[in-house]
Amino acid sequence: MEQVLELSYALDTFYFLVSGALVMWMAAGFAMLEAGLVRSKNTAEILTKNVTLFAIACVMYMLMGYNLMYPGDPVSPWWPGFGGILGSADNDAASVLAGGDDAPYYSGLSDFFFQVVFVATSMSIVSGAVAERMRLWAFLLFAVIFTSFVYPLQGYWKWGGGALDAAGFLDFAGSGVVHMCGGAAALAGVLLLGPRKGKYGADGRINPIPGANMPLATLGTFILWMGWFGFNGGSELMISNVDEANAVSLVFVNTNMAAAGGVVAAMITARLLFGKTDLTMVLNGALAGLVAITAEPLTPAPLQASLIGAVGGVLVVFSIIFLDKMKIDDPVGAISVHGVVGIWGLIAVTFTNGDATLGAQLMGMGVIFAWTFLASLAVWFVIKLIMGLRVSPEEEYEGVDISECGLEAYPEFTGKS
Amino acid sequence: MEQVLELSYALDTFYFLVSGALVMWMAAGFAMLEAGLVRSKNTAEILTKNVTLFAIACVMYMLMGYNLMYPGDPVSPWWPGFGGILGSADNDAASVLAGGDDAPYYSGLSDFFFQVVFVATSMSIVSGAVAERMRLWAFLLFAVIFTSFVYPLQGYWKWGGGALDAAGFLDFAGSGVVHMCGGAAALAGVLLLGPRKGKYGADGRINPIPGANMPLATLGTFILWMGWFGFNGGSELMISNVDEANAVSLVFVNTNMAAAGGVVAAMITARLLFGKTDLTMVLNGALAGLVAITAEPLTPAPLQASLIGAVGGVLVVFSIIFLDKMKIDDPVGAISVHGVVGIWGLIAVTFTNGDATLGAQLMGMGVIFAWTFLASLAVWFVIKLIMGLRVSPEEEYEGVDISECGLEAYPEFTGKS
Amino acid sequence: MEQVLELSYALDTFYFLVSGALVMWMAAGFAMLEAGLVRSKNTAEILTKNVTLFAIACVMYMLMGYNLMYPGDPVSPWWPGFGGILGSADNDAASVLAGGDDAPYYSGLSDFFFQVVFVATSMSIVSGAVAERMRLWAFLLFAVIFTSFVYPLQGYWKWGGGALDAAGFLDFAGSGVVHMCGGAAALAGVLLLGPRKGKYGADGRINPIPGANMPLATLGTFILWMGWFGFNGGSELMISNVDEANAVSLVFVNTNMAAAGGVVAAMITARLLFGKTDLTMVLNGALAGLVAITAEPLTPAPLQASLIGAVGGVLVVFSIIFLDKMKIDDPVGAISVHGVVGIWGLIAVTFTNGDATLGAQLMGMGVIFAWTFLASLAVWFVIKLIMGLRVSPEEEYEGVDISECGLEAYPEFTGKS
Repeated sequence: MEQVLELSYALDTFYFLVSGALVMWMAAGFAMLEAGLVRSKNTAEILTKNVTLFAIACVMYMLMGYNLMYPGDPVSPWWPGFGGILGSADNDAASVLAGGDDAPYYSGLSDFFFQVVFVATSMSIVSGAVAERMRLWAFLLFAVIFTSFVYPLQGYWKWGGGALDAAGFLDFAGSGVVHMCGGAAALAGVLLLGPRKGKYGADGRINPIPGANMPLATLGTFILWMGWFGFNGGSELMISNVDEANAVSLVFVNTNMAAAGGVVAAMITARLLFGKTDLTMVLNGALAGLVAITAEPLTPAPLQASLIGAVGGVLVVFSIIFLDKMKIDDPVGAISVHGVVGIWGLIAVTFTNGDATLGAQLMGMGVIFAWTFLASLAVWFVIKLIMGLRVSPEEEYEGVDISECGLEAYPEFTGKS
Repeated sequence: MEQVLELSYALDTFYFLVSGALVMWMAAGFAMLEAGLVRSKNTAEILTKNVTLFAIACVMYMLMGYNLMYPGDPVSPWWPGFGGILGSADNDAASVLAGGDDAPYYSGLSDFFFQVVFVATSMSIVSGAVAERMRLWAFLLFAVIFTSFVYPLQGYWKWGGGALDAAGFLDFAGSGVVHMCGGAAALAGVLLLGPRKGKYGADGRINPIPGANMPLATLGTFILWMGWFGFNGGSELMISNVDEANAVSLVFVNTNMAAAGGVVAAMITARLLFGKTDLTMVLNGALAGLVAITAEPLTPAPLQASLIGAVGGVLVVFSIIFLDKMKIDDPVGAISVHGVVGIWGLIAVTFTNGDATLGAQLMGMGVIFAWTFLASLAVWFVIKLIMGLRVSPEEEYEGVDISECGLEAYPEFTGKS
Repeated sequence: MEQVLELSYALDTFYFLVSGALVMWMAAGFAMLEAGLVRSKNTAEILTKNVTLFAIACVMYMLMGYNLMYPGDPVSPWWPGFGGILGSADNDAASVLAGGDDAPYYSGLSDFFFQVVFVATSMSIVSGAVAERMRLWAFLLFAVIFTSFVYPLQGYWKWGGGALDAAGFLDFAGSGVVHMCGGAAALAGVLLLGPRKGKYGADGRINPIPGANMPLATLGTFILWMGWFGFNGGSELMISNVDEANAVSLVFVNTNMAAAGGVVAAMITARLLFGKTDLTMVLNGALAGLVAITAEPLTPAPLQASLIGAVGGVLVVFSIIFLDKMKIDDPVGAISVHGVVGIWGLIAVTFTNGDATLGAQLMGMGVIFAWTFLASLAVWFVIKLIMGLRVSPEEEYEGVDISECGLEAYPEFTGKS
């Protein structure tokens, strides 16, 4: 019997670690997606941002974020209190073997590993929206604050057992806590930063700025799709019995069906609107489907999941068009994919989960958005005062690769060098 | 004891889900491989095809294909009868805990997840062969029919317990059911579609059309190699005891050794034939080794597996040369890799598996080929009547990226834009 | 009880197989990293090397290396004796169910699968350092000897239970056995081969030769980072109880934190030294962090792991600058990342592992370096005599893609073709 408990602990831990490795892989997905959707002269910089933000997220979450988000003994439902640096202590075997509902059933460090890649995901969402014009170190400074404080605090409200959780707000794997949160931080940055030079003409014309490398963008989307099986599948938090194994399987199937639904819907929408099957919209459709199902991948039937994803896929196309009309310049569509569709995902919970109420969903969404947007706005504003957010017009024209990183992404492929 | 059964169920389910995620990853592999082997002006379109065909495969298999291929109560060995849409029901715990040979030992939805990525794999094979000249929506329409009906019906004959299974035809993970099937559908399309303009000169000259991006093609091959561990390894269908764990391990080792054998053989063959170590042949050698071992990765010893792969690696080089002589224009070599080497894989079963007979293998191969080729030919023909298969000569000259997707894959890298 | 032992065996085997698949994936990481860091005219050749060296490593390790490295009955602590070809035999169920400390607890073939991808990793390290000027088949011949004999022999001394293991030398997952070993073989090759034409000017000037494709190099780094979870995580060799599951989790966390620490340190170092956040240094920082923690990822606390990685990240920047001053031309920085930082990793073991002694670490390091460097030097020298190591100056100027592989990696993207 003890050996069975040990084995069960090992299986759930392994499931966490594999899920976490898949979510870590999403960092590569964001890097490739964003690198494919910007111009070649800004590619090395966005790659640098994606690698360094991941590293910063890991360090800051270890130093402060994790124990803020999951406090042992919170001060209040809105304020967890500062914890401390992550140590190497883990559950002792005796507490596991005691059994019962309170006994730990998987390694605490495997939980940290799973959680740390979530905060990196949320931060990755920001990097694409501010691409091609922000100063690298302004971004990195924001990453420090966001991953150590802004994200963990709202994460505590829901997943750490704080006020939103108590209010009945439901968000299975983070359409709100991760995706809309990242989208809100991105929106705040974009508003302070302004659009890229030449994007919106004086005559009201919107100039398309095509991405330099579509295979990279497609690869990034496939990586994110694959990683999302860890993101949603791991968020069931247990797999070691029949009901949980069935639940994880349903989450995998629904995650996949929602992405597929998003692709089909975006593909048809783009064909009808533009007369062409625009690849970037198809990719955004896949991601929108994934974001949409993330708030509740367990209660829908597979067909419902594909419909929830499909609505996301339609929504993202119109949202991208709308934001461009509003002159909110988001080179990779991150605010639409993660922010707007994240909201849809939170609402869609109410369609299939009987425990969800529209009121609680709207409340949670409003609180997360208000906190993240306002806190991010304040942080971006202070950074702007200290060091400035934006590169000079000359640097922007030459490309931020040269000014920020001192090298080019493709030195032999363009006429520039 | 009950907890042990639950744990065992959870482990086998997790093994299915991980295997399925690896096979899903193969979709990215095909996308990168094909995107690397076509010209830059046709790259965005082939990426679009690879994303959308995966989504279509998932939707159609959920709506119809899965329950056609695995009917609860088949009408006859050749006709399963229509099932229905996949629901979210799964095994209840009681049936699992009853134990015995008939008790389910893994989640039914994890099985769907594993199966759905197989049909997408088979469909991916087609997309490369018809590249650079087919209309996108003609292809998508074919994908709808193929993934909902053509593939599942022959899948039922073998894996669903139909007529080929009863006849003793052996195909462990699908050299025939998945790979040759995809190759046959591709061949039918290519024959109706004709070669790319300029590929075969009036003077009988065969003009090489080099792929635009070798790193992508190599990445795609590595992705496929990795994903194949899920493809073959998961097809053992159980891992939860000593014998099964050993079997899955042997399948992993043999899959890897066959790919390695294919690489070494193709590398030497290309060096002897061309005087150069042609990278595309090396990549095709790896894939040929993988296809060759797929029909039987469990009974060979590792050395035998590498030899079976090596024969595949030699065969694929000569097959590619031969098809070009026949003016069958397959830009990525898919018909050779999956079709011709798939046949070799089915025959090779007889060398190491005492239960296999050459008669049953040839019969199964003939039936799958005849059905898939003729059914596909009919479908392609009807699509040709309705909307035409081929883009206009002007569109083909300009590249299908502009005409079908309205964007370019690499707008800054070529002189075109 | 027997079923529990079987399940435990299955879980540990599955953990090995998943870890092995992740390490196999590192082959793609090296291929992308190296392809991104060389010039476009030498890209197809380095891709060819990476695919073929992996295949050669698998074949030679099956034929000879594995049974040399892990002999059943060694001749002496320094000489294991020749074993034989890997067969398909595995543990029988009875020996597993006997239980006890000597009973096998995972599949022997899963162990081979895990080990074979390690030798390929070590060989991959060499390919980048000798890039852009070595003859392809000279390299392949070296790969045959290295993977069948040079690597396995020193592997036996430590992991096969030979002399270094007996001497108390500690190397958890191979900072020395895999990484420094590969670095030493690379150094020997580079010294005999000489620098690329034009790298070091007659006036003492060091000319930077930028890599052609930064997104590929970044992708490669992310792949290696992900694969390292299998590399270090799998090297715990067991996960099936509470203590082991906790240990594997800590290894995952520390591996990730060391990479993050390496990134942050390299990013700051590059910014201070060059005034720019050089992406290639950031990527090397990540890899240096990973190499540094590989010798001991289990005893440090996460904060310590990030510091060990950070030292690696600083060290790699200075090492790359220093080797360039010494006119040791290593296009991808492999000798610095794997060799120099590998040494740091071996020393760092003594800071957190009470069982380690500086003497044993230095002794092990010296023995591995001396053996690998001298044996490799001899092999490279003989190959130089037989067929020559270096392409002609004309071929080097034109690029080795044309001379060795007969094709170009990017035929449409550069003005060359």
